[in-house]
Amino acid sequence: MPSLAQRVFAEWLGTAFLLAAVVGSGIMAQRLAGGNGAVALLCNTLPTGAILVVLILIFGPISGAHFNPAVSAAFAMRGELPWPIAALYIAMQVIGGIAGVWAAHLMFELPLWQFSATVRSGGGQLFAEGIATFGLLSTILGCIARAPSAVPYAVGLYITSAYWFTASTSFANPAVTVARSLSDTFAGIAPAGVLAFIAAQLVGMLAAVVVSGWLWTRSSAVA
Amino acid sequence: MPSLAQRVFAEWLGTAFLLAAVVGSGIMAQRLAGGNGAVALLCNTLPTGAILVVLILIFGPISGAHFNPAVSAAFAMRGELPWPIAALYIAMQVIGGIAGVWAAHLMFELPLWQFSATVRSGGGQLFAEGIATFGLLSTILGCIARAPSAVPYAVGLYITSAYWFTASTSFANPAVTVARSLSDTFAGIAPAGVLAFIAAQLVGMLAAVVVSGWLWTRSSAVA
Amino acid sequence: MPSLAQRVFAEWLGTAFLLAAVVGSGIMAQRLAGGNGAVALLCNTLPTGAILVVLILIFGPISGAHFNPAVSAAFAMRGELPWPIAALYIAMQVIGGIAGVWAAHLMFELPLWQFSATVRSGGGQLFAEGIATFGLLSTILGCIARAPSAVPYAVGLYITSAYWFTASTSFANPAVTVARSLSDTFAGIAPAGVLAFIAAQLVGMLAAVVVSGWLWTRSSAVA
Amino acid sequence: MPSLAQRVFAEWLGTAFLLAAVVGSGIMAQRLAGGNGAVALLCNTLPTGAILVVLILIFGPISGAHFNPAVSAAFAMRGELPWPIAALYIAMQVIGGIAGVWAAHLMFELPLWQFSATVRSGGGQLFAEGIATFGLLSTILGCIARAPSAVPYAVGLYITSAYWFTASTSFANPAVTVARSLSDTFAGIAPAGVLAFIAAQLVGMLAAVVVSGWLWTRSSAVA
Repeated sequence: MPSLAQRVFAEWLGTAFLLAAVVGSGIMAQRLAGGNGAVALLCNTLPTGAILVVLILIFGPISGAHFNPAVSAAFAMRGELPWPIAALYIAMQVIGGIAGVWAAHLMFELPLWQFSATVRSGGGQLFAEGIATFGLLSTILGCIARAPSAVPYAVGLYITSAYWFTASTSFANPAVTVARSLSDTFAGIAPAGVLAFIAAQLVGMLAAVVVSGWLWTRSSAVA
Repeated sequence: MPSLAQRVFAEWLGTAFLLAAVVGSGIMAQRLAGGNGAVALLCNTLPTGAILVVLILIFGPISGAHFNPAVSAAFAMRGELPWPIAALYIAMQVIGGIAGVWAAHLMFELPLWQFSATVRSGGGQLFAEGIATFGLLSTILGCIARAPSAVPYAVGLYITSAYWFTASTSFANPAVTVARSLSDTFAGIAPAGVLAFIAAQLVGMLAAVVVSGWLWTRSSAVA
Repeated sequence: MPSLAQRVFAEWLGTAFLLAAVVGSGIMAQRLAGGNGAVALLCNTLPTGAILVVLILIFGPISGAHFNPAVSAAFAMRGELPWPIAALYIAMQVIGGIAGVWAAHLMFELPLWQFSATVRSGGGQLFAEGIATFGLLSTILGCIARAPSAVPYAVGLYITSAYWFTASTSFANPAVTVARSLSDTFAGIAPAGVLAFIAAQLVGMLAAVVVSGWLWTRSSAVA
Repeated sequence: MPSLAQRVFAEWLGTAFLLAAVVGSGIMAQRLAGGNGAVALLCNTLPTGAILVVLILIFGPISGAHFNPAVSAAFAMRGELPWPIAALYIAMQVIGGIAGVWAAHLMFELPLWQFSATVRSGGGQLFAEGIATFGLLSTILGCIARAPSAVPYAVGLYITSAYWFTASTSFANPAVTVARSLSDTFAGIAPAGVLAFIAAQLVGMLAAVVVSGWLWTRSSAVA
């Protein structure tokens, strides 16, 4: 069994790498894309999906590789993670996410401390965040139930897809949302929109916990 | 064994997510691509292929993850799915597909109810739909016979490829065809072309059932 | 054991699908790419790599999924395939490749019978074909020796890469080379260049048979 | 057990193919991208990530598939590779890398002997190289500890991501850095910047050896 110190460190480091990848690839993509928004988003999408596979492969066996307060809260609600540990995880995810954003800023020689000016709001985007988080949690809970070794690939592919099919580009993660509000770059979100995004994410998470609790029960096992 | 309710719900939800991804990523891709059609189609292709892998991974163990009347009918013809269940599956796929299109419209703040004006017709496109569906069914039936755990990846990769090598961008799915006629966006198909597309898909499906019934028999097993 | 009829049919159908994908996606990519050659080649590369994974997954257990005279000849040289069967495979690959090109032409409503005008020649391209084929055969022979279930993915990824790092875009396959000479589209090669390409491919294949016969011997097994 | 000759040959050939892919795809991508830097880097990224998966799949069972002095040194520091063998590996990696660059130049009919004029320097890029190498080593050491069969995919995906999220495009490999200084093409690095890059890579490697030695210990095993 990994120790608690190893587990929270894995959540911190993994979330830091995730945000460095999201924000760093966004900066690189926008700098190079010559104004083509689809090329920029594609070059932000593929590195994000790819690093997720890697991070879940290597940190999954240590901490579960949540990197996402909605995921930790869902496991706590299902009784699979004690709430105090979930709270610790969530704190480390937020701190790690901010560290990752700052690492990206350092690498690209930008000011550490920034606030995004990219307004992301409106009913469509909030509905999209609900759908995005519902889908992410369903991916995790459904895949764990039947094909746990495929979870890293499933999550990476889900986010690769959801960046495009949701109007909000699928944050689907409260820690990621907070961290991205601190970067005035391609992947940023203006702080005024953060709370509404998180609320929508939690609604999507709750729906997924209910639905998946019924759908992927033990009694529904094929074999 | 999953219950019938779980199975039909999985078909409904999975097809809804599939269509949300197809139509949603098409909207996002076209908005951002700056008029470059290849970039737009690429950014519609990758999210579609990626979500298929995920959906088959998580819903496969519940319902078989058909999401496609041609697939359900093929399994019924092979005697692997009772026809009444197949009919129920098909109904849920059509309803789910429409729900997914509407979810995409909601996310992108477009009118729910639309009809596509994108004419897709002609002998080349119909031949392409036949080929596309023949290939999709061969992928599923061939992969199930020999490497069933690879089916999610095989289907995702097949569609990723077929979006490009078929002149019709490979609908290969009657429920998807109906649903996409209800979206006047990148992925749409004008309603007048739907029946011919579906007919071509069924011909391709029938050919695949015949060919694969001979090719991937038990007696052809290597080991 | 698959019957000989099943095996040669699998070689024919698989090579036909491969060429339909190579030529068809090339046509689609060039039509949509708005003159950007890298976007066009990328949208030709990804469908080619993806379909290779699928075709090897489903036809591998039937025929070995060679789809390539250089591969069949290599297995014959290694004593793993009788020469008469190899000759039959090769004939089916050439016929299947041409059928695939014609299927692509039909789908895109182009004349069936064409000759490419795209000159591909010169020492650099021939050296590239040698390297490309050496790498492809090493991929297959090395992967079969140690991780046979990964062969479909390895071959798909190898070609995805080799389309870009070889100056010839990596034909690496005599049947593909012949078939692509019969399409005056993106993926074509002018007939005058075919024999030199095939000669370079055979040299690369021979080098791979020698090197891999020494490198991946039984005695070099780790465990 | 592979012989020492087989092992060092595998390091030489694998590193040669890696560099041929990095430099060759960079040349092709830049030639075709029409000045769009993001498209060029994307078409350099995907072939690099793809070939890494292949090379680690086929050479991993022979030599461990390091292709990277930082990796060989890390294994030596962990006591898993004798230092004299590590030194031999490193020499072969440098020689192989240069051979690969020259192969790319030959294929694209460029002068063999070149020096890059692309200045890559500054604190941001050095910090990026440290992060990139820390991440690469963590990927390898973490994945070997828990999911060794996923190492080829994890490394390919990590580099696919790191090309974009690090300001330096993630060399993360001293042999690659030296070799790329000898190519005045897309992937080049001016020789003046090589030593600082290598120093930053070694710092990142040392940090990863320390962190991963604590994080992925035997006692942290879940099962």
